[in-house]
Amino acid sequence: MNSRDAFHVYDTTLRDGAQQEGLNLSVADKLAIARQLDGLGVGFIEGGWPGANPKDTEFFARAREELKLQNAQLAAFGATRRAHVKAADDPLVAALRDSGAGVVTLVAKSHDRHVELALRTTLEENLAMVRDTVAHLSAEGQRVFLDAEHFFDGYRDNRDYALEVLRTAFEAGAEVAALCDTNGGMLPGWVSDVVDDVVSSTGGRVGIHCHNDTGCAVANTLAAVDAGATHVQGTLNGYGERTGNADLVSVVANLELKLDRRVLPPGLLREATRIAHAVAEVTNVPPASRQPYVGVSAFAHKAGLHASAIKVDPNLYQHMDPSLVGNDMRLLVSDMAGRASIELKGRELGFELDQDLVKRVTDRVKDMELRGYTFEAADASFELMLAEEVGGARPSYFEVESWRVITDSSPQAEAASEATVKLLAGGARIVVTGEGNGPVNALDHALRQAIQQLYPEIVKFELIDYKVRIVDQGHGTDAITRVLIETSDGQSSWVTVGVGHNVIEASWEALIDGLTFGLRRHGA
Amino acid sequence: MNSRDAFHVYDTTLRDGAQQEGLNLSVADKLAIARQLDGLGVGFIEGGWPGANPKDTEFFARAREELKLQNAQLAAFGATRRAHVKAADDPLVAALRDSGAGVVTLVAKSHDRHVELALRTTLEENLAMVRDTVAHLSAEGQRVFLDAEHFFDGYRDNRDYALEVLRTAFEAGAEVAALCDTNGGMLPGWVSDVVDDVVSSTGGRVGIHCHNDTGCAVANTLAAVDAGATHVQGTLNGYGERTGNADLVSVVANLELKLDRRVLPPGLLREATRIAHAVAEVTNVPPASRQPYVGVSAFAHKAGLHASAIKVDPNLYQHMDPSLVGNDMRLLVSDMAGRASIELKGRELGFELDQDLVKRVTDRVKDMELRGYTFEAADASFELMLAEEVGGARPSYFEVESWRVITDSSPQAEAASEATVKLLAGGARIVVTGEGNGPVNALDHALRQAIQQLYPEIVKFELIDYKVRIVDQGHGTDAITRVLIETSDGQSSWVTVGVGHNVIEASWEALIDGLTFGLRRHGA
Repeated sequence: MNSRDAFHVYDTTLRDGAQQEGLNLSVADKLAIARQLDGLGVGFIEGGWPGANPKDTEFFARAREELKLQNAQLAAFGATRRAHVKAADDPLVAALRDSGAGVVTLVAKSHDRHVELALRTTLEENLAMVRDTVAHLSAEGQRVFLDAEHFFDGYRDNRDYALEVLRTAFEAGAEVAALCDTNGGMLPGWVSDVVDDVVSSTGGRVGIHCHNDTGCAVANTLAAVDAGATHVQGTLNGYGERTGNADLVSVVANLELKLDRRVLPPGLLREATRIAHAVAEVTNVPPASRQPYVGVSAFAHKAGLHASAIKVDPNLYQHMDPSLVGNDMRLLVSDMAGRASIELKGRELGFELDQDLVKRVTDRVKDMELRGYTFEAADASFELMLAEEVGGARPSYFEVESWRVITDSSPQAEAASEATVKLLAGGARIVVTGEGNGPVNALDHALRQAIQQLYPEIVKFELIDYKVRIVDQGHGTDAITRVLIETSDGQSSWVTVGVGHNVIEASWEALIDGLTFGLRRHGA
Repeated sequence: MNSRDAFHVYDTTLRDGAQQEGLNLSVADKLAIARQLDGLGVGFIEGGWPGANPKDTEFFARAREELKLQNAQLAAFGATRRAHVKAADDPLVAALRDSGAGVVTLVAKSHDRHVELALRTTLEENLAMVRDTVAHLSAEGQRVFLDAEHFFDGYRDNRDYALEVLRTAFEAGAEVAALCDTNGGMLPGWVSDVVDDVVSSTGGRVGIHCHNDTGCAVANTLAAVDAGATHVQGTLNGYGERTGNADLVSVVANLELKLDRRVLPPGLLREATRIAHAVAEVTNVPPASRQPYVGVSAFAHKAGLHASAIKVDPNLYQHMDPSLVGNDMRLLVSDMAGRASIELKGRELGFELDQDLVKRVTDRVKDMELRGYTFEAADASFELMLAEEVGGARPSYFEVESWRVITDSSPQAEAASEATVKLLAGGARIVVTGEGNGPVNALDHALRQAIQQLYPEIVKFELIDYKVRIVDQGHGTDAITRVLIETSDGQSSWVTVGVGHNVIEASWEALIDGLTFGLRRHGA
């Protein structure tokens, strides 16, 4: 038995996850995500609904040629045959068969009301649809799993029928019956009781598929495993319709690190943070900073008293070692932080600060934060400030004289943005015009063109993220804008902050600091 | 006994919640949030740490004059007295006493390692610190609650000492001992066992305070209540350090709607969605769209087969009636949606669409989504498209000739943005220049100045939100930018979308549609 079969980790990011509001995946996106999921070591990747969704038909076709999975097996999702049609004659069933997936997961109604109102057929015919489709695909050589839709609601309304659906599937050859809390209304204690009953009443492999409508998706999943389930479904980063599916990384991290269950190939859990963020890049859904285990803030400490304890022993304020999931501890510099945090942060960045310097820097941080700056997310700007306080002057590689950026509409084409920058560098006065797909992009291009002969390393720098926030100071003052820019040199990246009433002014400040920091890091 | 005392709903948004990375509250913000929390009917509002945090000292001082709470009692948070100092002589304890709060919540170490390594004192002295501070403040007339910090870790390492801390507090007059999972590493089953033991061993009122590091904060809280806790702590929207505190709305919604416990004054749970969003406005932290119960996506249905079932009965795909928490069901228009969703959406917006029209609109939606548009979050743009398909031409109130926007740096002051717009409206050619704090803001001002004589209702329109997303089309094409703009007329608001390679071009499209939609709605 393959190691993936001892305990099933079944990912449905590409199918159920894709039902999240705002999530829109191309076939190329899906293939990229599948590779990442394989890198995490999940046992099964549900790729989509071939036949029903043209994008998914294409995904499975391309996967056959292009996807070389090391750990996971691809699964095709689909429905049982139509009522009163033979499984062999149903074109959607044929699409599942022809997808080339090693596993087919069939969704079947297990709630009598749904059979009657949504499918508009009889309870008997529904069982036949399950039996026939499972048997047909098993005979054709695919592994068949069952997703028992609305199982918990169905069990509540008609326990016997719900169990009958599962037994029918098992008898016809299904390897797994995954109990789906489709509407998401379950709580952990209830899940426990139901799964307990199902495991003893059916004797087959029971799976669990939860949604987060009560905020308990992960807990519900763990409760099911505790009651005997050996197949867990979820999505990366908890993507999914409405409140999302169970966050699969939280589930497997809890199983491995808290409950001592081996569910991933050894060593792969450490890739979780990297993979969670890589997939977020592809989905273009900004990752939740407070996501358990892998979020950027998951191990970020702000309170001053926490920081002073962490100086003694990180385990005093952390429930586990972040590196086990590939994450890091971070100390946040803010007006709540106090001197202990600033001292530790300075040390983290390579500065030994005497007490006077710590006080001066602490006061400056508090003052700047009152004016709208934040250093929590802008380490590079904080480091430049430390360098300025320690060295007596802010690092500087050029002197800006002026800049201007114009965007013009165009009758036949799209608008074009053009920026002119005038500065002094290396003893010369430089005037450069750059183009871009927006004002900040144009300024960035112009700036870099201006100094690239003097500093050729600039060529590797790239603006990879840009965030704008309106900061309301209250008390009737004009709102100010805060910009965070992330710059990369291809190997690492750094974040700088800019503040101003004008968004382009604020962006300019963050841009200048981004380049300055990069040049300093490269030893200019 | 006050109704708030039968079961304690204790909110720590303003204290523990404020430790969230990126969250920065002014005193004015805190007062505004306190009023909202009171509107939800929580029993206790922990306002901060007076004495230790100057902003909080000010908050409590101003609260005495300005805060008139209907439902909640204010609580001041602080530490037990310093080691070897009398409670009456400790200035931080005095600050708690002088805060004017009806309740003081004292955080005390209940983990022996923390007493020794972080506090650097003896286990006996720590007990004395608890006893003296609780007794002192009780004698001075305040209600005293205890936060037993790191309780679960402390119980694991030294059960007897952890329980001794609680007993000491109860005997000295504390009304509640809240067990804090400070590092957030607990799972529901473990919490159950510990709380069970504590409830039977101490006989006092036990509370629970969870963090979301394992993704189980809400479930842990419910497990504690199930084991006998009658005091729950949490924050609105789950704000808090690292992965956040337990989301108090999820906790109370689950208790009231799933477990039939009355924990809020009658009728107030229906305010939850409004209040959760109002508080998010104040914190300036964008609300999580997938947040259980109150998130914008919590009852948003995308999958085509869900929409066709919902046409039959909403309960087929929802675990509860969204209006019980003040939320709404939404049907999302997207390429996954299919004709059933588009037909329902059209009807929702007041259009009866025949089948040909439904097909044409569905195809157009799928095509535009391939090009980067999204209609899920841009109802107004979708409505304009329906109006165009139904009426034969897109609604239009002016014809744009050209536009240009310039931002210039300034040696003495901040950069200034200036936009010139040329258009035809009401038979005249209009050329207007507007200023703003950025290119889009300047274009918005210029546009509105241009048409405001012809359409005076424009004066009420205001751009209230602006989102930019880079949409990666894959296949090596240039990334395109998608802009969502929210416009308000003071009574309602609407969202429009724009797409383009240039961010200003995309913004312009969304701006034009925003104005057009507003004018159409106002009967222009």
